[in-house]
Formats: sequence, structure tokens, C-alpha cells
Amino acid sequence: MTIVLGPNQYGKAENRVVRIYRDTDRHEIRDLNVSTSLRGDFTAAHVDGDQSAVLPTDTQKNTAFAFAKEHGVSSPEDYALALAAHFLDAASAATGARIEVEEYAWDRISVRGKGHDHAFARRGGDIRTTVVTMERAGATRRAWVVSGLKDLVVLKSTGSQFTGFLRDRYTTLPEADDRILATSLVARWRYASTDVPGGDWTTTFDGVRQILLETFATTYSRALQQSLYAMGSAVLQAHPEIAEIRFSAPNKHHFLVDLSPFGVENPGEVFLAADRPYGLIEATVTRDDAPDAEDAWLTAPGPRQEGVT
Amino acid sequence: MTIVLGPNQYGKAENRVVRIYRDTDRHEIRDLNVSTSLRGDFTAAHVDGDQSAVLPTDTQKNTAFAFAKEHGVSSPEDYALALAAHFLDAASAATGARIEVEEYAWDRISVRGKGHDHAFARRGGDIRTTVVTMERAGATRRAWVVSGLKDLVVLKSTGSQFTGFLRDRYTTLPEADDRILATSLVARWRYASTDVPGGDWTTTFDGVRQILLETFATTYSRALQQSLYAMGSAVLQAHPEIAEIRFSAPNKHHFLVDLSPFGVENPGEVFLAADRPYGLIEATVTRDDAPDAEDAWLTAPGPRQEGVT
Amino acid sequence: MTIVLGPNQYGKAENRVVRIYRDTDRHEIRDLNVSTSLRGDFTAAHVDGDQSAVLPTDTQKNTAFAFAKEHGVSSPEDYALALAAHFLDAASAATGARIEVEEYAWDRISVRGKGHDHAFARRGGDIRTTVVTMERAGATRRAWVVSGLKDLVVLKSTGSQFTGFLRDRYTTLPEADDRILATSLVARWRYASTDVPGGDWTTTFDGVRQILLETFATTYSRALQQSLYAMGSAVLQAHPEIAEIRFSAPNKHHFLVDLSPFGVENPGEVFLAADRPYGLIEATVTRDDAPDAEDAWLTAPGPRQEGVT
Amino acid sequence: MTIVLGPNQYGKAENRVVRIYRDTDRHEIRDLNVSTSLRGDFTAAHVDGDQSAVLPTDTQKNTAFAFAKEHGVSSPEDYALALAAHFLDAASAATGARIEVEEYAWDRISVRGKGHDHAFARRGGDIRTTVVTMERAGATRRAWVVSGLKDLVVLKSTGSQFTGFLRDRYTTLPEADDRILATSLVARWRYASTDVPGGDWTTTFDGVRQILLETFATTYSRALQQSLYAMGSAVLQAHPEIAEIRFSAPNKHHFLVDLSPFGVENPGEVFLAADRPYGLIEATVTRDDAPDAEDAWLTAPGPRQEGVT
Repeated sequence: MTIVLGPNQYGKAENRVVRIYRDTDRHEIRDLNVSTSLRGDFTAAHVDGDQSAVLPTDTQKNTAFAFAKEHGVSSPEDYALALAAHFLDAASAATGARIEVEEYAWDRISVRGKGHDHAFARRGGDIRTTVVTMERAGATRRAWVVSGLKDLVVLKSTGSQFTGFLRDRYTTLPEADDRILATSLVARWRYASTDVPGGDWTTTFDGVRQILLETFATTYSRALQQSLYAMGSAVLQAHPEIAEIRFSAPNKHHFLVDLSPFGVENPGEVFLAADRPYGLIEATVTRDDAPDAEDAWLTAPGPRQEGVT
Repeated sequence: MTIVLGPNQYGKAENRVVRIYRDTDRHEIRDLNVSTSLRGDFTAAHVDGDQSAVLPTDTQKNTAFAFAKEHGVSSPEDYALALAAHFLDAASAATGARIEVEEYAWDRISVRGKGHDHAFARRGGDIRTTVVTMERAGATRRAWVVSGLKDLVVLKSTGSQFTGFLRDRYTTLPEADDRILATSLVARWRYASTDVPGGDWTTTFDGVRQILLETFATTYSRALQQSLYAMGSAVLQAHPEIAEIRFSAPNKHHFLVDLSPFGVENPGEVFLAADRPYGLIEATVTRDDAPDAEDAWLTAPGPRQEGVT
Repeated sequence: MTIVLGPNQYGKAENRVVRIYRDTDRHEIRDLNVSTSLRGDFTAAHVDGDQSAVLPTDTQKNTAFAFAKEHGVSSPEDYALALAAHFLDAASAATGARIEVEEYAWDRISVRGKGHDHAFARRGGDIRTTVVTMERAGATRRAWVVSGLKDLVVLKSTGSQFTGFLRDRYTTLPEADDRILATSLVARWRYASTDVPGGDWTTTFDGVRQILLETFATTYSRALQQSLYAMGSAVLQAHPEIAEIRFSAPNKHHFLVDLSPFGVENPGEVFLAADRPYGLIEATVTRDDAPDAEDAWLTAPGPRQEGVT
Repeated sequence: MTIVLGPNQYGKAENRVVRIYRDTDRHEIRDLNVSTSLRGDFTAAHVDGDQSAVLPTDTQKNTAFAFAKEHGVSSPEDYALALAAHFLDAASAATGARIEVEEYAWDRISVRGKGHDHAFARRGGDIRTTVVTMERAGATRRAWVVSGLKDLVVLKSTGSQFTGFLRDRYTTLPEADDRILATSLVARWRYASTDVPGGDWTTTFDGVRQILLETFATTYSRALQQSLYAMGSAVLQAHPEIAEIRFSAPNKHHFLVDLSPFGVENPGEVFLAADRPYGLIEATVTRDDAPDAEDAWLTAPGPRQEGVT
């Protein structure tokens, strides 16, 4: 029996990069959380402690900040693609780079009805995300872009049921003809290529986000699964540049409170919002002619990547 | 030496009460986190384990949910005042009740430009708060209302300096003529009485919030302390119904990154947003003719109340 | 009407100071979270933006780290007292200083049954705390020390009941003759003076912690209130150097699960551990001859300090 | 172009199951966080909203609690295997089940030197984990067990260096001959089969944990990668029942504080423990003759599973 190194990855996680554009008096802000990592032949570092092929995580951090100026942040996707390409240049032992970016949105503070030039309030709500994976094979390079959003909390106060489900001896759930449906949505969509319409990642992001919201709102839901599928279908129909979309959606239970012991009726008006446990629904919606995902969703082989965290 | 019971308080914390108004097809939602507690003569419960004067925390929970229907939630303040009065009725051993409410805002999902009737997205950002304290003295009752907001994250990308400060042998900080100023604001204002203009707590809330934002934006800041004082003064000038306002404001440091080792200039464009440590600025702005706070800010004697958590 | 500055406080929060003692090959580690703040006449800073009396929070940070070497960390209390005295020297406008320290415990990693010289595992569990308040009045100084612990999670699987409580129309809770009692304890005790036996704060800490645990374990509980009172009494009886002790104790509900729909009995064996809402019990136990607390529990006037979080 | 459902999974996450064994006066406690999920042909639920093949997540919750009594919790692994097998029986549309369990350890409270019968303190520190995946193919079933721990925070105050690394134009990091090495370890190991020595999962768990600690302590570290590889090798050498082990290890940076501006030396004694960014090292150590992992690490196709959260 011989012990060997398996898949591995290393990098600097959660660099909080804030980029202010101040070319004019009307400033712009990009507020990012950037994680970079490299894969490749790093056996010597693991087995012998030889670091000669290892570009330090501290250097990766420096680069993430420097690129916010040198390359700029026109979009998370564009910035991440540039960083990934750079790291493959800089670290010859690396066969792949993975750049993950979260972006926090800010609004201009309204002063007498007009957005202020350099004062901002953080918007809160959902967070824009992207993960860029870039690999080399000889002289060629390939890149995959998976963008998305997380923490989009949505709720329908009617137009949702859950009936006709499978029952066994442990089933006590009554059927619900009218319930609250709520989730904190994570959505991630894989682009078919790095060529998006007009090179404009943000227009697609905004379009997808709006479709997700509208479809959630207007779909009569017979289960959260059905809502997600409808949402994914609508995205794919409107955005041919997207090959597939994946959802992770906790069912944020709102339990109708029994007020009858107090002689009070409760026709769908008072609910307890519960924390744990919660339903967790995960689904993929794709095209039958989508290009293969290959390494788009590939991440490190570590435990975190397996979703067991 | 005799051992005695000192101040004490008990209740049910963090009831997540969601109230849907569905009297018409156009639903409304109030999403609350409600904590109730009672003070008074509960010596027997502590010393002898005698619960005969103790209204259970489970009952307090039930009441918080029932009142969302029976009394309704026109505003957090109005709902909390009703709950406090009820608990003094229900528990004769209680000399005081304290009701704390947080409210999470939701927006209607926009569908083809119009807000949907029954689909909502949680707004994120800052949270509205209120704390109502009600006490009895014989046949009379007195109430204090402290309302506010928290988690209002604001940032100015210029218009802020920090210079001329005291120096000692441990001082290494250079003066800053132009820096990012950012905080996650907690503000709480004490109402002079429970009579607010038009009985409309929400109009005052909206007005204060807007003044805080505008004043932060438009004040050239020589320190976060100065910004807070200006913000508080503006609130008191515009709202005679408010006696004082208190702030707790972490200075969310954004450090300018030194890119010179890479031959890159950084004239206020790339910053590292730091987590810990952070400056913490706390200040009160009040009127010299304000009514005494008395028990408005009084809370339980427990450790949490002392701010040492 | 004139607007004036009320109570205020500023400082640097959450300095993560790690001190390694390496005078011999057998290292020692003190792992601290240090928050410092100053009170006093800082009107100019707030009203005019004049910082000439303000010792920067950055300097406070530097000092917290330098003192870990210059003064050392024999105990959190001793270190905090030294820092507080220094800040009153350094900032003449300050009339009071408040130093809060949390300490995280580490154990030596056991290697073949013996504790390693310089390898440690963080213990987890409860955190040791202290808050030192020091004030000057003319040439004299006074100090108060409030020490404690937090996050001490304890549970009894029997020996707890809750019966005989007050009922009203909103009461549905059945009486419980045998239930799980669990809490995540915060305890803080005020020392009668800064003179503790042998000058050894740690011996008292260890003693109090053990008394809390043993008394929780051995007290038949008719309510969490009763357990807390017994725990506090036992501490005061054994430690005359302690004037009072305050508790904040969430009742971490463990609900017996009804397995009868599945034909399964559940005689106190399977429970659901709930998150929210939770009972919150807060109580003080004191001596009737204790010195007055004066400013021991005084903290900044900001919202956080008022327990309204 | 046709839109189709891709991989999907659903279940109930974070059931907080507490099991008390009270067959004698000396109680035992198992404190679990259980997440269950099913995979299979659930197209009708997604596309048509037809729930007839869907065993509700509420039923999964009920079953998790009922099995804590009916099957018992001799170990997380044994309990999870039983649940997985049951769900494949109960839901004929499911082709696979995945059960994830975290276990929180409790110690008996020591009373006069002896562990109490029914009073416990939560240990804190690291958490034991397991993930069981079970699939059916016709009449046969296959199961994989991946067990581990997380949040094991360890630190070496010497015996660690980082030198000889690759440099590029963004590298500013100085070489370190003696530094603090610290991490919050996540380790997960895949069992070669469900047959473990003596059927005793806990003995293996305890053994692996001790090897990880000892090897971390005694390995002179030229990088965190090297420490992890040594730790994984030692586990595989001692435990032939384990096929591979995967690590995710944030490098918890402790920065030596420059005290020279204050005329104070700092020879490795005072450090700032930083939050973000952090290095993140992920590695797999395996045997060259290990059975293929197949679906052991397979999880839902959702975004969370891809590690991009």
C-alpha cells in the first residue's frame, strides 16, 4: 500500500476588496468579497514541504487588491476572469484557478430627492455571486463562468398549496390548500460560454434576477419544487447564453398558529416563522442541448466542496 | 450577612410573529421579532420555587401571537404598548413590563412594473426597532417608548478627515485628510411622551431615518463623533416629539491598500474593508429641556443589560 | 430649547490579542479579545470636530498589544486594570475608562499521554470575561471589577419540574413533573474591591465556575429562577470577596416529541431542541451588606448598553 | 431546444434530535443535528406539481425523531445507516438517500470529583460528523460512509516556518523561520466499506482524532499543506478501514505585532489574530489501492454542493 496525495487546492479566501471610482465627483463603488485558489501539481509542498512552486496566498491577496486598480472591476465576472488568467501565468505549477466573488450592492443616499455623489447606503438583501474556473491544457486555456445570487428572501402569502403527497406510517402532515410559501433563494447559472451578449454580464444578471422574482410571484405553487422549475425554465427561455441553472432553496416554514384555545379565529393571518428544521429543496434546470458542464462546477476535493458542511 | 434577591426579569424572547393582512386581495405583511418580559416581586419563584405568581413565558408567547390578531399590528409601537398593558393586567405581581420589537421590511415584488398583491421580497438593510417600558404605581401606569433602527450601513467615499488628534508614545496613526467613513448605525430615540403627532409612529420613524441619512451624507466629517452629533441635532430640531437620541456606531475601517510595491498608485481607490478591531463610538444627543428619562432605558439587571456582552 | 451632548464613550473594540509566553521551552498562551473605551469631556470632538483631546482608537489598539508585552497578562483582570490606569494617564480629558476582556481557553495537545510543550487545542465551551471600570475624581482613582463567564451550556435530563404557575386565558402550557432543564449561562460577579485573596483572580474564577456547575447539577429545580438563585447564593456564601452576581439565562427548550401517532412511547427519551423563541431569565443575587455598586455596571449611554441590543 | 429537469434532491435539514438514555439512573445523552434528503425520479413534482411520489420533508422529520427511539443512536453512523435504508423502503421513487449527522459532545458535570448521573455541560470544541449515502440498483443496495470532525481549532506556537516559496511581482511576504501555525480543521474520511472493526464506529473516530492531534503537534511544519499530508498519512497507516481522508483547513493567521515604534521588542510573543482574509488549504490523502469513491462524496447538484457558497 502506498499513500498518495489526491486532489488539492489552496488560496486566499475572503479578501474584502472595496473599489471606489472617483474619476469624477460622482463616485462609484464596487464592494467585493474575493476568494482565489489554485490547483495543480503541488505534491512537493505537501510531501516534502518544498514551497518553490507555491505562489503564496499572501501574494494572491496582494494581486486581488492590485487588480482592482490595474484591471478594474467593470463586473465581478470580468474581474474574476482577469485574475484567473493572471494566476495561471504567475504559477506554472497551477493547472487550474478558481476565483469566487461576492458583490454587495450599495445605493446612493437620497438627498432632497437626488442621489448623493459620494454617500451610500448598503442595500442589504440578496448578494450577487460569480465563480470563474479556468484551466490550461498545454497552450490552450478554457474558462467557465457560474454566476448567481444568494440570500434572496421571497414570500407568497397565498397562491401556494401542498397536497396529494405520499404518506407512510410516519406521516402526520395535513394537506394545505392555502399556505405561506417562503424561501431564501440561492441560484447559480452556468453560462454556455464566456461570450455574453454585448460582453455585459450585468445586464444578464439583472434580467435573470427579475425573471426569478416575477416567476416566483406569478406561479401558482403546488410545491416549492414546482416554483423552482418554473423559475429555471423561464430563465432558460429568455437567456440563451445560459446553459443551466441550479437552485438551493430552504423552505422557510411559516406555521399557522392555533388561536382557537383563546376563542380567536386565524384564517391565514398569524404565523410563526420557524428556524429549524427547514425543508431544503435543490434542483437543476437545464437544456437538453446544453454544452457539457465539464469542470464548470468543479471545485476543490476538500470536504467543504462536497456539500457536507 | 443575608443573601437577597436583587433586580430580576423574565420573559419569552424572539417570538417570530408574522401577521398577514388579507382583508382584500392586496395583502399586507408585518414581520416581527417580539420579546416580552416582566419585572416585579418574584421572590417566591426564586427563593422557594413557588410559581403561583409567575405567568409562564409560554403564555407570554401565546399572547404575543394572539394579539397580532386581536389587537393587530398597526405599528410596532402600538402593538407593544397594547401587549405591555395586557401583561400588567394579567400578572398582578408584575410592576413593570418591557416589550421589544424588531420589524423586518418587505417590498412587493414588481411584476411588469407593478407591485404584486401577495408576493414579497424581504428588503434587507436596516431593521426598525422599538422598546416599550410600562410600569404601574398603584392605580396609575406610565409608559416610555424608545424607538430606533439598527444595521443601517452607510459610507462616504470622501468628505471625511481625521486630524489634529491627541498623540502619546503609542500613537502611530498618520493624519488623514481624505478617508472613507463608514458605519453600521444603531440609533434609538426616546419619545417625550406616548402622544406622537397624529398617533402615527411610522411617519416619525420614516422622517428620522431620512434625516439621519441626509445629514450623514451632507456633513463634512472631522470625526465620526461629529457626524453623529450633527445627525442627532438635526433629528431633535425637526422632531419635537423626541426627547433624546442615542447612537452606537462602529467605525467600519476601510484601509487604503499600499500598492506602491507593485508600482501602482492608489489615490483613494482601493481599500481593504476590515472586520476587527473596529472603533466604537457611542453618543447621546439630547435637549436641555427634555423630560427626565426615568425608566425609559431601564432594563433587566442582568449582565446583558449592562452592555458587557 | 438647546441641544446638548449627553453621555458618550469611544474606543477600540475586539482587539484579538494573543500572548505567547516562551521564556522556557514549555510555552504558555493567553488568547484575548480586548475592548477599550474612554468617557469624559469630549464635547469639542462632537460639536466642533476638534480632536485635540481625543486619544485615537488606533492608539488604544496599539496600547492593548504593547501592554500584553510590557505589563503582561497574568490574568484578564490584572491586565485590564493596568490598561485602564494607563488610559487615564494618557488622556487627560477622560474621566473614566472601561476595559472589557474575553479569554478563550486552550489545552495542551496530549501526545502519548503528556501535554505538548507548544501545541494546543482550543477548549471550546464557556468563555471567561471581565469588565474593569476605572474613574478619577481629582487626584484619586476608583476601580470596579466585574468578572464572569458566558456560553456555559448545561443540561439536566431529570430533576426539574415546572408546576403551579399562574394561568390566564392565554395559558395552554401543561404542568411538567419531569423535564429537561438547559441553559447557556451568562454569569457576572462584582468584586467588593480590587483586593482579592492572594491577588489571584484566577483562583476565584475557577472556584466560582465549579460552584455554579455543582449547584446547577445538585439542585432539584422547580424553575430556572430557583436554580439561578441557588447558584448565586452558593457563590456568595463561599466567596466573601464577591458582592453580587448577575445571571442571564436563556431557557433552552427541549420539547418532548409526541411519538404516539407512530405507536411509539416516549417516556422522556426523545426531544426536539428548539431555537426560538426561548425563555430568558435574568436575576441578581446579592448580599444585604454589599457595598453599593456605584459605577461598577455603568457603561456607555449608547443603545447597546441599555440592553436593547 | 427542450428544457429538462437535472439532478435534484430534497429533504429536511437540521433536525435537532436529543436522545436521552435513562434505562438506569445514570443517564446518557446523544445530541444530534440531522439532515435527511432523497434523490430519484421526482420529475412530476417539479414539472407538474404532482406530489404523489414525494415523501414530505415533514415525514422525514418525524422519522428522524422516531428512529432515535425505535432504532436508537449507538453511533451517528449506525443511526444514519438505519435512516437511509428506511427512506429507500418508504419512498419507491427515491434512488438514493443521504443522511448527514453532526454530534455535539457533552461531559458529565463533576460533583465532588465524580461525574453526575444526569447533569451535563456541553463540551464545546470540535463537532463529530457523518454523511451516509445509500443507493439502490434494482434489488441491491450500496452504502458509503464519510465520517469526520469539524471546528477542531489547533495552534503551534513554534515549530512552523514558511520559506522558499515562489515569488512574483506581487509578492511582499517575508520568509518566516518561526511563526504561529493555527487552523480550524475540517477532516472527513471515507470508509472503505461499512464493515468497521468490531462494528464500532466510535473507536475509529476517537483513534483518528487523536492521531490528527498528535501528528499536528509533533510535525515540524514547513507549510500547512505538509502538516495536513503528514496527518492524513498517519491516519491511513493506522486505520486500514479508511480509504481516504480530506481536509479543509483555513490558515488562521496570527500576525506578529510590530512593537518597535514603542521601543518594545517582540520576539514571537504578541500576535494579532486576524479574521479575514485567511489562507484556505484543502487536500486529499489517499491510498493507491483504495476502492473507488463512486458516489461516496456525491451530493445534490445544487449550488451549495459545489462549494461555491
